Amino acid sequence: MRMVPVRLGERSYAIKIGAGLLARLGAECTRLKLGRRAAIITDANVGPRLAAAARESLVSAGFDPVLITVPAGETAKNLKSVRACYDQLAAHRLERQSFVVALGGGVVGDLAGFVAATYLRGIPFVQVPTTLLSQVDSSVGGKVGVNLAAGKNLVGAFYQPKLVLCDLDSLKTLPPRQFASGLAEVIKYGIIYDAALFARLERRLPELLALDPRVLTAVIARCCEIKAEVVGQDETDRGLRAILNFGHTIGHAIENISGYGKYLHGEAIAIGQVLAAAISVQQHGLAAAAAERIAKLFLRAGLPVSIPLTPPQRRKLCAAMLLDKKVSGGEIKFVLARSLGAVDYGCPVPPALVERVLVSAAEKRPG
Amino acid sequence: MRMVPVRLGERSYAIKIGAGLLARLGAECTRLKLGRRAAIITDANVGPRLAAAARESLVSAGFDPVLITVPAGETAKNLKSVRACYDQLAAHRLERQSFVVALGGGVVGDLAGFVAATYLRGIPFVQVPTTLLSQVDSSVGGKVGVNLAAGKNLVGAFYQPKLVLCDLDSLKTLPPRQFASGLAEVIKYGIIYDAALFARLERRLPELLALDPRVLTAVIARCCEIKAEVVGQDETDRGLRAILNFGHTIGHAIENISGYGKYLHGEAIAIGQVLAAAISVQQHGLAAAAAERIAKLFLRAGLPVSIPLTPPQRRKLCAAMLLDKKVSGGEIKFVLARSLGAVDYGCPVPPALVERVLVSAAEKRPG
Repeated sequence: MRMVPVRLGERSYAIKIGAGLLARLGAECTRLKLGRRAAIITDANVGPRLAAAARESLVSAGFDPVLITVPAGETAKNLKSVRACYDQLAAHRLERQSFVVALGGGVVGDLAGFVAATYLRGIPFVQVPTTLLSQVDSSVGGKVGVNLAAGKNLVGAFYQPKLVLCDLDSLKTLPPRQFASGLAEVIKYGIIYDAALFARLERRLPELLALDPRVLTAVIARCCEIKAEVVGQDETDRGLRAILNFGHTIGHAIENISGYGKYLHGEAIAIGQVLAAAISVQQHGLAAAAAERIAKLFLRAGLPVSIPLTPPQRRKLCAAMLLDKKVSGGEIKFVLARSLGAVDYGCPVPPALVERVLVSAAEKRPG
Repeated sequence: MRMVPVRLGERSYAIKIGAGLLARLGAECTRLKLGRRAAIITDANVGPRLAAAARESLVSAGFDPVLITVPAGETAKNLKSVRACYDQLAAHRLERQSFVVALGGGVVGDLAGFVAATYLRGIPFVQVPTTLLSQVDSSVGGKVGVNLAAGKNLVGAFYQPKLVLCDLDSLKTLPPRQFASGLAEVIKYGIIYDAALFARLERRLPELLALDPRVLTAVIARCCEIKAEVVGQDETDRGLRAILNFGHTIGHAIENISGYGKYLHGEAIAIGQVLAAAISVQQHGLAAAAAERIAKLFLRAGLPVSIPLTPPQRRKLCAAMLLDKKVSGGEIKFVLARSLGAVDYGCPVPPALVERVLVSAAEKRPG
């Protein structure tokens, strides 16, 4: 087992990474000195596979958990699901010392975290991310929230978990498409922060895809370390943390206009990163060869690198970008790469260039 | 004008109290260096009276405000109203630097504050409380939130405003019943913290009821000071802040079982405080004469001091108390008075005593 500390003063917590951790959930919660009552929030995909084990571990340790199952998928990450969770927490009389266990992928983590952040003005929560994407991304950093019809993650809070347990075993039953989606965030950490990680991914991709536990543990731990370092310097997203959004401005807009759920988050941001790299070549000095390495690694990981759009869809995409939280004063700000491992945030990009890159990417998309 | 500072580190802010402050809203927001776009959230009672003035002041100062009007009353303090506000903020493209102005009583402040706390994971907000109750209570301390069907304030956050403007002029058009409701919180500060304030209220009640600006400013400022002192020592409600809930355990349960809106908040907690004083006489050494002074002052202020209940209603009331956030480990904890100006929190009270006090209060209620 590897442990990555997230240092945020009195809100510090640990991420534990290894095989068989779900069975230790109850014991770990006992160490946190939480109240007896708990709610396991999961979804209709993950619940049938893992909720019984989570429940049993908590019950063995003397806790009294209630199971709340929300529909699976990004479309369920909405205020209706939030309200359904609140009602069940109240019906089961969870108190301030009670806690929420988020058992599932990023959607469940974001939703359950927001519920925990706002029920009784905040009760403790523990993340058990069950996808690669949520293990390396959404379980680190305390961003929780849900979508509105008008856009993704428009409602939320900054709220830290008390503990994150990344059980490698939960990745064994993950569909390959979901695993590849997680790799999109893994590759991102290499691009924005760590050229050595990027090179390691180029070398070790076959072992990663085969779920080699040693490579997997080391890579997940390194991603969590990078995110923890960035978040530790900028918890409430006023500056540096913006680099984590490399590829996300376009990625979120793709998810938005195509209806959440058509593209997996990782797929949308794979496209977004390839396009951000293309913009970086145009106006930020990124070598064309580096942009090619980026596109190639996403392709090898089984991820899409372009999106075919009609002109009206392209206009809709640009409009969606203008609603993004990263917009300030009506101008779209991008994270752009100077070289592999080094990016800058807050770079204004003319809408015309975004449009041009969208067009040329669609034209030369690999077939 | 009086200014009361609320010292909470980087979340510090000022409460300004005086006549004619609404006209200065735009100028005050300019000093805070906020974004250009804003939303004034108000209700159907306050909006027609004051929204135009608020809007004009903001526009004159160069801001671009949108007006959002929610239904009036505690029944509108729910997730449906929250969602309606989110949708309008998104439609008007409020960004992270944009801000919310809460223009109204406690309901509007709690609702708009929660919307501001969670939209885009938190945007700045300014409170313009227009009732006595909200000026002395809900605008100080950062508790924001809404009700669930299962109970009051079960959903919320701790979120501080950037500024609070208490305009005395807005009290002139306040119905007497609303003003009396505010006095219930004013009197509470005397009971829990300041015997001299309590004695001053006994002497100055006629001037207060006549809205004498000098007495009013001094009393509101003293209440805000007390609340700011208490909140400054315990921002997230882990200890001392509990004393502010004197009378609220029973008061919230009364509001809950009678349907929000039948009793005004101040009326419910006036009854709750008189009953908490009776319990204090029984098991916390409060002199019977002090309890009588308390009941008498509430009566003089035009507030109810008892509630007639059938035995099934009484059982329902006790059940509602068990869902209160102040419950810990299944035991009801009360704030009880030792003497005027001195209370203790976390006092366990046997349910049988609560029931006995409810019965005897109903029997000897003044007619």
